[in-house]
Amino acid sequence: MGGGGLVLALLAAHWGWSGAGGLPLLVGRGMERRMGSKAKMSGFPEWLPEQELVQARVLQILREQFGLHGFTPLHLRSVEPVEVLTSKGEDADKEIYGVQRLAAEPGTAAKLGLHFDLTVPMARYVMQNRGSLVFPFRRYQIAPCWRGERPQMGRYREFIQADIDIIGEGSLDPMYDAEMVWLLAHVMKALPIPAVQLYVNNRKLLEGLYRGFGIEDITTALRIVDKLDKIGADKTIELMVEAGIATATAQRCIEVANIEAQDASLRETIGAFGVSNDLVEEGLRELVAVLEYGHGGGVTAALRIARGLDYYTGTVVEGVLESHPKAGSVCSGGRYDNLAGDGKVKLPGMGVSVGVTRIMALCFHHGLLEASPKKTTADVLVIVHDDESVSQSHAVARQLRERGVACVVSHRASAYGKQIQWAEKVGIEYVWFPPRKGGEHEVKNIRSGEQAAADPSAWTPR
Amino acid sequence: MGGGGLVLALLAAHWGWSGAGGLPLLVGRGMERRMGSKAKMSGFPEWLPEQELVQARVLQILREQFGLHGFTPLHLRSVEPVEVLTSKGEDADKEIYGVQRLAAEPGTAAKLGLHFDLTVPMARYVMQNRGSLVFPFRRYQIAPCWRGERPQMGRYREFIQADIDIIGEGSLDPMYDAEMVWLLAHVMKALPIPAVQLYVNNRKLLEGLYRGFGIEDITTALRIVDKLDKIGADKTIELMVEAGIATATAQRCIEVANIEAQDASLRETIGAFGVSNDLVEEGLRELVAVLEYGHGGGVTAALRIARGLDYYTGTVVEGVLESHPKAGSVCSGGRYDNLAGDGKVKLPGMGVSVGVTRIMALCFHHGLLEASPKKTTADVLVIVHDDESVSQSHAVARQLRERGVACVVSHRASAYGKQIQWAEKVGIEYVWFPPRKGGEHEVKNIRSGEQAAADPSAWTPR
Repeated sequence: MGGGGLVLALLAAHWGWSGAGGLPLLVGRGMERRMGSKAKMSGFPEWLPEQELVQARVLQILREQFGLHGFTPLHLRSVEPVEVLTSKGEDADKEIYGVQRLAAEPGTAAKLGLHFDLTVPMARYVMQNRGSLVFPFRRYQIAPCWRGERPQMGRYREFIQADIDIIGEGSLDPMYDAEMVWLLAHVMKALPIPAVQLYVNNRKLLEGLYRGFGIEDITTALRIVDKLDKIGADKTIELMVEAGIATATAQRCIEVANIEAQDASLRETIGAFGVSNDLVEEGLRELVAVLEYGHGGGVTAALRIARGLDYYTGTVVEGVLESHPKAGSVCSGGRYDNLAGDGKVKLPGMGVSVGVTRIMALCFHHGLLEASPKKTTADVLVIVHDDESVSQSHAVARQLRERGVACVVSHRASAYGKQIQWAEKVGIEYVWFPPRKGGEHEVKNIRSGEQAAADPSAWTPR
Repeated sequence: MGGGGLVLALLAAHWGWSGAGGLPLLVGRGMERRMGSKAKMSGFPEWLPEQELVQARVLQILREQFGLHGFTPLHLRSVEPVEVLTSKGEDADKEIYGVQRLAAEPGTAAKLGLHFDLTVPMARYVMQNRGSLVFPFRRYQIAPCWRGERPQMGRYREFIQADIDIIGEGSLDPMYDAEMVWLLAHVMKALPIPAVQLYVNNRKLLEGLYRGFGIEDITTALRIVDKLDKIGADKTIELMVEAGIATATAQRCIEVANIEAQDASLRETIGAFGVSNDLVEEGLRELVAVLEYGHGGGVTAALRIARGLDYYTGTVVEGVLESHPKAGSVCSGGRYDNLAGDGKVKLPGMGVSVGVTRIMALCFHHGLLEASPKKTTADVLVIVHDDESVSQSHAVARQLRERGVACVVSHRASAYGKQIQWAEKVGIEYVWFPPRKGGEHEVKNIRSGEQAAADPSAWTPR
């Protein structure tokens, strides 16, 4: 924006302006009050049209792929009772945005909050509607989530997530862990973004190994090892020793964290640690099953992946941009056996989530993908010859749209050069000339300069 | 749900459960605390999968139609600074939901709020990004809005709106008023919902007539006449007289409110009132232009339409279900010349909004449209013969999906009858049998009972 201050002159109706009615004239007061809205809000990213068109393609592919795999779209509400949101675990409430009418009694605590992910609302919905759903139940939701975190590159206060989950009633075959991980791999490949590498692990395996090593406070140990990437092995071991873990044991944890595998050779690698218990067996079986389910590559077992202190109980997965592995996960998910249940029956689930906003932000920031060469969805600008032929131009536009050709009618019967200039500005490639005086329709490709006769009932853009 | 209380057992990780880690066991505490979430939240509607599939079709048609007409999708943030939201007009702030981190200092006022429509954020975005946009600028947004109103049938606290707007820089030809009204008519016809009748009016015309009648407090007069439908003519006149308007004048206002027209005959009807001023001339010219632009019918001029105390300055439009005209408007919009501007240049706009949630709610409530016969996006269930052939079934599913056939693989190698029963439950019509022992692929239509050989590289559902 230029030097002029942003004034959102939200003026009431026309007669408010005129001074005749009872509405206050808001401009004077408003100008001063609203200068604050000039700055963009940190943590609440918005894109330009040419970027939105790329994101729209990403979202459309996600919807198509999720639908092809039998996931039903749900548009669940954005707010939940605060107690549902805060039950996730320690400290979670600090990130939650409370929601309350501005007119509420001052000092009263918010009873509602904005969801911080799409999994918790989905679990609540499945419980509420259990009698009406058929299990296994597959749903997807693409929607914003909110977290009151300190904004930074790739971390936002409002961000779009695209989630798919499958929920069983009573039980959910471990086979679905594999199916969902590879579905995620498939979907990430279908998107028009740089390559994503998926890393998969199993919490049972990790916990079994740690138990076998004699570690008692597994949560603390995992929380420390989770920092390995950032602080390095020496510092990680130091912290573990401070937490009462023997140096040799800490070193074994680091060795485990460094394991990567793409096939059943993982069994031998794990076997070398000499730990055998039910959790290790079960976790290893599930993890190898995920690897062996694969087709087409792109999934690696990496035992450093723990996915924080979430509700996951078995398989965990996360994906990073191959070219920017340190930029954080762009998709993730896992198995949760205990997220929802009513005491009589468990509703175990497996879900994965695509971080749409983070992907777009990383890609735009690092120049990893081109914005659309267009600023509009339209492929064609229909020229208006003169004021008398406006309706003729609109008739052509209707004919094109009926066959799925996106177009706009020129906004002014100005000189052709001016009309074409507008098409150039918004990146439209084709300009349509309706017939004059019994002539033919013609289409000009304003990039190549080619111009030829065209039939509005048959022509399509390249 | 059955008798068991809803327990959203948001249990932390597996090791939290096991008691070995440091995570609290939330179940006991949680069960009691979370009973409150059993009830659905009034004003925050959610649909079942078979209903969501209908809504998904509505949303997809809206996206397609908006795109065909050259509107770029924008996903603007859900929150705005409170001062931007409250500048709309009197009393508006009582409906606004403030947003604040739960961890915020108690007693501090929320600085952010959830938007109550999609027009105000769009106007703010256009101002902020004016230098990067090409005008006239067309955008659409489909997103939830929030209003803390008392919920009732068709009025919700969270609801999805689908908005299109066109914004000019400096000026915006009145021709766009007509284009947008008829685009709305076209879009409403394209939706799989009962017929919608659009009513259009012009605020300049109304204001001009009222001025001509000698009314000084036009806002108050309009606010009273706006109740005509609900309270009847006698009570309306009574209220106007109380407000200091002469009985004869009040009667003329009622006469105006009762005018309907579908063509230029409106000129004569208005002429009969003997009022002539610039506002009447301009408003009438614009209103007749909207009517005459039409093709295919469905738009009526109705001088009772005022669209409340909004930011509209000229054309206003609203649509109701023909079968349920009293159920409230399902789409609406209008011209706003003063919504955004920076003091140097005006950014006049014309926009229309489709009330997706209200439409779905009315249609479901009154049985105006069928829910989908399916509870899933999948058209085909691929049978699993036995545990050994699971991967064969998945290969078939991949082949079908590559050609756009939505399918799921059966979740268990149980008896065929059980697998088919699942397909029946979710409303899937086709069951696919991969070949056994060198045989052929076969597809069974479980509604008709027909079964025939099929090629997974060529077959499509009806």
